[in-house]
Amino acid sequence: MNAVDVIRTKRDGGTLSDPQIDWVVDAYTRGVVADEQMSALAMAILLRGMTPGEISRWTAAMIASGERLDLSTVDRPTVDKHSTGGVGDKITLPLTPLVAACGGAVPQLSGRGLGHTGGTLDKLESIPGFRTRLSNAEFIAQLGGVGAAICAAGEGLAPADRKLYALRDVTGTVEAIPLIASSIMSKKIAEGTASLVLDVKVGLGAFMKDVDQARELARTMVDLGHAHDVNTVALLTRMDTPLGHAVGNAIEVTESVEVLAGGGPADVVELTLALAHEMLTVAGLPDADPEAALKDGRAMDSWRGSGRAPADGRRDRVRQVHSGRICVHCGRVPDRGGGLAARCRTGAQGGPGVRRGRGTAAQEAGRCRGGRRGAVRTPYRRSQQDGRGARGGRRRGGDHRRRAGARPDRAGADSLTR
Amino acid sequence: MNAVDVIRTKRDGGTLSDPQIDWVVDAYTRGVVADEQMSALAMAILLRGMTPGEISRWTAAMIASGERLDLSTVDRPTVDKHSTGGVGDKITLPLTPLVAACGGAVPQLSGRGLGHTGGTLDKLESIPGFRTRLSNAEFIAQLGGVGAAICAAGEGLAPADRKLYALRDVTGTVEAIPLIASSIMSKKIAEGTASLVLDVKVGLGAFMKDVDQARELARTMVDLGHAHDVNTVALLTRMDTPLGHAVGNAIEVTESVEVLAGGGPADVVELTLALAHEMLTVAGLPDADPEAALKDGRAMDSWRGSGRAPADGRRDRVRQVHSGRICVHCGRVPDRGGGLAARCRTGAQGGPGVRRGRGTAAQEAGRCRGGRRGAVRTPYRRSQQDGRGARGGRRRGGDHRRRAGARPDRAGADSLTR
Repeated sequence: MNAVDVIRTKRDGGTLSDPQIDWVVDAYTRGVVADEQMSALAMAILLRGMTPGEISRWTAAMIASGERLDLSTVDRPTVDKHSTGGVGDKITLPLTPLVAACGGAVPQLSGRGLGHTGGTLDKLESIPGFRTRLSNAEFIAQLGGVGAAICAAGEGLAPADRKLYALRDVTGTVEAIPLIASSIMSKKIAEGTASLVLDVKVGLGAFMKDVDQARELARTMVDLGHAHDVNTVALLTRMDTPLGHAVGNAIEVTESVEVLAGGGPADVVELTLALAHEMLTVAGLPDADPEAALKDGRAMDSWRGSGRAPADGRRDRVRQVHSGRICVHCGRVPDRGGGLAARCRTGAQGGPGVRRGRGTAAQEAGRCRGGRRGAVRTPYRRSQQDGRGARGGRRRGGDHRRRAGARPDRAGADSLTR
Repeated sequence: MNAVDVIRTKRDGGTLSDPQIDWVVDAYTRGVVADEQMSALAMAILLRGMTPGEISRWTAAMIASGERLDLSTVDRPTVDKHSTGGVGDKITLPLTPLVAACGGAVPQLSGRGLGHTGGTLDKLESIPGFRTRLSNAEFIAQLGGVGAAICAAGEGLAPADRKLYALRDVTGTVEAIPLIASSIMSKKIAEGTASLVLDVKVGLGAFMKDVDQARELARTMVDLGHAHDVNTVALLTRMDTPLGHAVGNAIEVTESVEVLAGGGPADVVELTLALAHEMLTVAGLPDADPEAALKDGRAMDSWRGSGRAPADGRRDRVRQVHSGRICVHCGRVPDRGGGLAARCRTGAQGGPGVRRGRGTAAQEAGRCRGGRRGAVRTPYRRSQQDGRGARGGRRRGGDHRRRAGARPDRAGADSLTR
């Protein structure tokens, strides 16, 4: 078995055998297959495609490259969500504590920005002191306690994917359905969730530019989930305009907290609730009422609970970020009228950051240059007793952040298949 | 300018701009574009192709990555030959001294084996003590003197190609016409030859499996030559069976010396003479008689002359190799009946050597394993006064090396275009 033969097979439009796939994924993880060989293979996969059988085996090989978490000790139903990512997609941040507030346990192992889209971890790290790394034991304990844990996937989960994900980002091989599907599903299956809701973005700001592509990706991932006993559902949602008003790590966190406080931009609220309903349904909690949990402050309490867990004193930092308005570095007020393009142009809003060099360097779409990532001046301008207090503040902010000509063109969630 | 945008442009079927090509070739040479990025781009080029304009610019960028030799001080007409390579293709070895014997100066800067084909340098290095590295000054001096110099291209000629050539070999991106054409022509143009004959192999043992592919490659290279003021001609020749009887570095040298001695396998002699005629014609020496030069010993004298130049005492070694019969390591007599497959199967006869690791490691198609590369037991069995003496020896050897069932199916040279 050697890398050149595997590359040639795919390059020439052939089907990789199970032993070829097992070997190349394992050998790449061990460093026996070199980065330049895997990137040539990734490009061949992107341009030649893979059969369902190949994708399934590739995913299994990526899972087998590491450990698979056992969440059976968590006494709530575990349910995760994954978005394929788009510009301004900050839904994970309000959604995770919201579902936890309604009785689910959300084992949210998140990723970094890929291509022109931002990553949940990058966003959370704009909160000073936020710990995005938890041990497996800490992760499971937090799940059983507050029911929500957003953190980086441990080193032990799908290490093949970790390596390949970074490679694809610098070699123009992100937009391959077999590689996207196997990357997402290998991590989600390895993290041990019982149920999974996929939010597949389609449109100018997403990786999938048209609905057929998005539907193919969704079907591929749902099939992979079921093959590994994960109860999986996918929604297709539109991503032609950035979600909400903010694009940029720190200001997206601010906007997300506003949603948890019962306010926030209508499109973010709508999608958050649609996904929460799906997650609670697949988790066997169809009667839960996420709208009520946003209104009565339970969702905000859950966010604060999960926020406090990893590091002392983070609660105050979350509050500060919530009311931040002005970027320390550029002095801009990024949320005042007309600050964002009304429609994305094919990923053009994505950050110019990650090019040369390994890994998905923290990049922030549209952020100013210079200085600490995503830092926001933090004038703590009003007292907040709880989530409802913050909501009032949000509404004031909301009024003068309406953009001229920006139509929030979010699609209704289109339930695909279960 | 960044690598991912360049990769994406080609991946999506677009045309690279001149600045993109100039930048990516230069940045790759300087190590700013990483190997894994260039291999993804190479795969995209292989699968998407390049326009004539892109190939021309890519070639110019590779030439511009280094120096261009000035052979104007050589007082003979300079004319080089390049074969796209195949199994058992040892034509360079007899051809170079033969053309020199007829009045041309052949600046033969040769390469290593690529893919399943052997390289001229690898073959020559099976002669103990043969120097394949000459300085530019030594190279030009030898050209002006004996008229024939076969050696490795210096570090200064098309360094971009040197790097890319090694990368393609381990990433399954050898068989791309734009990359083959630009690789060959950038080196040949940079070496400063005034005229060039291209021997484009087609068939099961060559990179080009069908005649349309081969014709496209030939046309592409002829156009590139003319664009850079090199008088260029291409022949298409068949490579379904290995040329001659021997496949393996040392035994191919032996067979080549037999041709210079006036004997050798009919197909090797025929192709050598066809190419010699073409080379002498484009060099402005149409009345030269290479057949006579083989018969009267001038070709052998030229080989010995060029052989002696780089290192003292090599003449004797060349004689020893000439009469070698038995591999030191495996003890086989590789040239006795039926030892070779009658037809190649798509490169299957190629060496299994170069896989993981940089560079075109010395590999030898079909050679035995173990020990020093290409070494041949050297019973110096008969005295040789000159080339004609050796010819008699060859004939004896030739009789008992006829293979059962192996039809030497070499095509007549098909002159393509000038």
